[in-house]
Amino acid sequence: MKPLKDSKRTLLKPHLLSVEELSIPEIDILLNKANFYADANRQKGKIEKTLKGSTVITLFFETSTRTKTSFELAAKRLGADSIGINASTSAIKKGETLIDTAMTLNAMHADILIVRHPDSGAVKLLSEKVNCAVINAGDGTHEHPTQALLDALTIKRNKKNIKGLNIAICGDVLHSRVARSNILLLSKLGARIRIIAPPTLIPKGIENLGVEIFNNMEKGLINCDIVMMLRLQTERMKGLYVPSTREYFKFYGLDHKKLKNAKKDALIMHPGPMNRGIEIDSSLADNLDRSVIHQQVEIGVAVRMACLEMLTVGIDK
Amino acid sequence: MKPLKDSKRTLLKPHLLSVEELSIPEIDILLNKANFYADANRQKGKIEKTLKGSTVITLFFETSTRTKTSFELAAKRLGADSIGINASTSAIKKGETLIDTAMTLNAMHADILIVRHPDSGAVKLLSEKVNCAVINAGDGTHEHPTQALLDALTIKRNKKNIKGLNIAICGDVLHSRVARSNILLLSKLGARIRIIAPPTLIPKGIENLGVEIFNNMEKGLINCDIVMMLRLQTERMKGLYVPSTREYFKFYGLDHKKLKNAKKDALIMHPGPMNRGIEIDSSLADNLDRSVIHQQVEIGVAVRMACLEMLTVGIDK
Amino acid sequence: MKPLKDSKRTLLKPHLLSVEELSIPEIDILLNKANFYADANRQKGKIEKTLKGSTVITLFFETSTRTKTSFELAAKRLGADSIGINASTSAIKKGETLIDTAMTLNAMHADILIVRHPDSGAVKLLSEKVNCAVINAGDGTHEHPTQALLDALTIKRNKKNIKGLNIAICGDVLHSRVARSNILLLSKLGARIRIIAPPTLIPKGIENLGVEIFNNMEKGLINCDIVMMLRLQTERMKGLYVPSTREYFKFYGLDHKKLKNAKKDALIMHPGPMNRGIEIDSSLADNLDRSVIHQQVEIGVAVRMACLEMLTVGIDK
Repeated sequence: MKPLKDSKRTLLKPHLLSVEELSIPEIDILLNKANFYADANRQKGKIEKTLKGSTVITLFFETSTRTKTSFELAAKRLGADSIGINASTSAIKKGETLIDTAMTLNAMHADILIVRHPDSGAVKLLSEKVNCAVINAGDGTHEHPTQALLDALTIKRNKKNIKGLNIAICGDVLHSRVARSNILLLSKLGARIRIIAPPTLIPKGIENLGVEIFNNMEKGLINCDIVMMLRLQTERMKGLYVPSTREYFKFYGLDHKKLKNAKKDALIMHPGPMNRGIEIDSSLADNLDRSVIHQQVEIGVAVRMACLEMLTVGIDK
Repeated sequence: MKPLKDSKRTLLKPHLLSVEELSIPEIDILLNKANFYADANRQKGKIEKTLKGSTVITLFFETSTRTKTSFELAAKRLGADSIGINASTSAIKKGETLIDTAMTLNAMHADILIVRHPDSGAVKLLSEKVNCAVINAGDGTHEHPTQALLDALTIKRNKKNIKGLNIAICGDVLHSRVARSNILLLSKLGARIRIIAPPTLIPKGIENLGVEIFNNMEKGLINCDIVMMLRLQTERMKGLYVPSTREYFKFYGLDHKKLKNAKKDALIMHPGPMNRGIEIDSSLADNLDRSVIHQQVEIGVAVRMACLEMLTVGIDK
Repeated sequence: MKPLKDSKRTLLKPHLLSVEELSIPEIDILLNKANFYADANRQKGKIEKTLKGSTVITLFFETSTRTKTSFELAAKRLGADSIGINASTSAIKKGETLIDTAMTLNAMHADILIVRHPDSGAVKLLSEKVNCAVINAGDGTHEHPTQALLDALTIKRNKKNIKGLNIAICGDVLHSRVARSNILLLSKLGARIRIIAPPTLIPKGIENLGVEIFNNMEKGLINCDIVMMLRLQTERMKGLYVPSTREYFKFYGLDHKKLKNAKKDALIMHPGPMNRGIEIDSSLADNLDRSVIHQQVEIGVAVRMACLEMLTVGIDK
């Protein structure tokens, strides 16, 4: 771990690989700092360039707009030099291994590598080989910790407390690292989590994480404070998992009728990108009284600023 | 519209979507500021970073080198954080709508979105959904306002006045947003515009814009002050529109012989990228006594700096 | 050549196109400055932003991760505005010539163009048409001067002197601009160069460069101080040049047994990306007592910083 620049500041972790490894005090410090940046981003030009002289590299092996852009903006707002590596045109194509690519960027004195990879565990493996900090921006079906952190802060800013809330996570839980990270984080913070999905889209053993499971969305939404929809990978929808997108929307898409079962002030969330009319009714997605989908994006940049700061100069205790 | 930082500065418009909506005083203010930057860019390192802390995002749904690079350089020269979204690998591919992509970038507190899209009107539609400023970097066959502004300033710097000039716009007018924006802008500034093209490449109703139409290039060039060639999309050249590139060059390509019909000091312009030997003779393109093609590129960066400044902090009155 | 900003500083060359054209004093000045940056990069945040206000554009017609990233990091560390043009989606695809693309970027007041191109001589041709500085980041099978400079500095930092060293360059010399630039540079600096390769991978006339040629790797490595492995383009390995990757590794891959013929403290180098198990044994590549492969990457950024500085503001004498 690198020396602290200031004795009042603290590095919480050498890497940010999963929600699982974060303690509650660490989460609190991170979310407080992120909350500060969420406000600061609304008044441009006043942000201290705490990462000036630092090098942040994004290395994405899956396409992404929002997560990659969010991280790059976060890095730039804090004054870091930011470089994006497009893995589809990278040396990986010339036969280089993932680890060699990472060690090459490490040797260039990157301070932080932000990595997305289709294989669960690949980012952790990589983090063990480099001496710069690594952020997991999504690894296979394992974790996507910054998404869960931004979801938690979005809930906190709207509902004050996460403890005691009933949160429903709905849709393609089987393939979703977002679901997994959110279950782990929101449980840790005291929420009661329900999973709503067709039996084919529920991973085995998920009940060991302490969640309630519903196959019937109407029932699952009763008394919910938060309805968190997941993105349905439409390319997987043919055949095996779900009969058709139309059928899926009928039973597991969020519409006005089903939403009535939730609390009157229940909030709608979605990590994006949305398939309108498949997992969510278009007018609900756009209803700013209920949907906090754009707030999630906004707070995402702030959360990533806090994470970058945590891993380089440290965050004020 | 955002609050002005300084009472002496003025925001002209919330967006820059078309030449059509610009008033003559607004055009004058923009071109004056751009003229200042055109000179400043020749003496590096003295440009005030008026966009420091601002976020500029380019979102291009068609490939582009010169326009995208020109905007990115303009943003960086003014100190903005600049991020480019490659739409071909973006969330759009995952089924997200154009508007959702734009609103996502908006939620990240972009100050300016610079958008190119193959559909006419798409950029305007998008601008109605976001609260950041939007610049149209080309939408279908509709408009490309910064190209027309840079063309106008290039003419002004070489000919002093635009008023009263005879300007010939030659080639694939049918598919050209550049032609459309130039006709609107240069007419507004008092030039007389002629269109020179084969009948198949002239859009219906173009005469309503007050232009003269020529199918014969020799005749059309008589007494011209400016010969503005358009890029011919060679992929459209087979069959329907023009018989062959060789045939096309013979009748509508700019060569030494045809140019003799224009005024002795007539200037040659081209928005690029050029098809040498198809729409223009190579030696004419390179003749710096007549061709101002590189000046157009140079002034393009300056015009975009003025546009970015207009839409964020405002321009001095 | 541009005016010097400071009389104590000197521009060595208007461009950096090849090792061939560099004099020994010029190489010394460059490597001294690069050595300074190699140390400075280990203590972040203290680097003078000598390129502030400068524009550096990378224009790569072949894919690259390490070289492109290395140049971009070098530019950003010195405070330049850096823009990357992806040539596969550029105007070249619309029929524009290489020279027109370069002149367009030149007209935007780029200070330095960094160009990689599959054709030998293309970068020199381009440099003759623009008035900004040009760096050859690899042209066909001709030269890759910054790679040779970083290899030289890596050797110098580990062996103190290059003069008198026995350096073996092993593998696909035929297709390697890295080999060519290294032979030229390291010979100039007083090393004795040996080429080790199968007869099919040795270019005709290479002996005119004053190198010794070995087809037997065991013999070629005897008494060597440096074993510089080359990347084998596996796509060329079928048929004509080498029988199979397995066969190749047996005879020309660096393994523990063959390495024993070299000096006990011989260093292993590789320009990357590596094909582990084809041109080099994996455990040797990772043996930090022998392998300086990561140092090469690290020093690469420093060398490129020195080159960028040389071509813009000049280097202290």
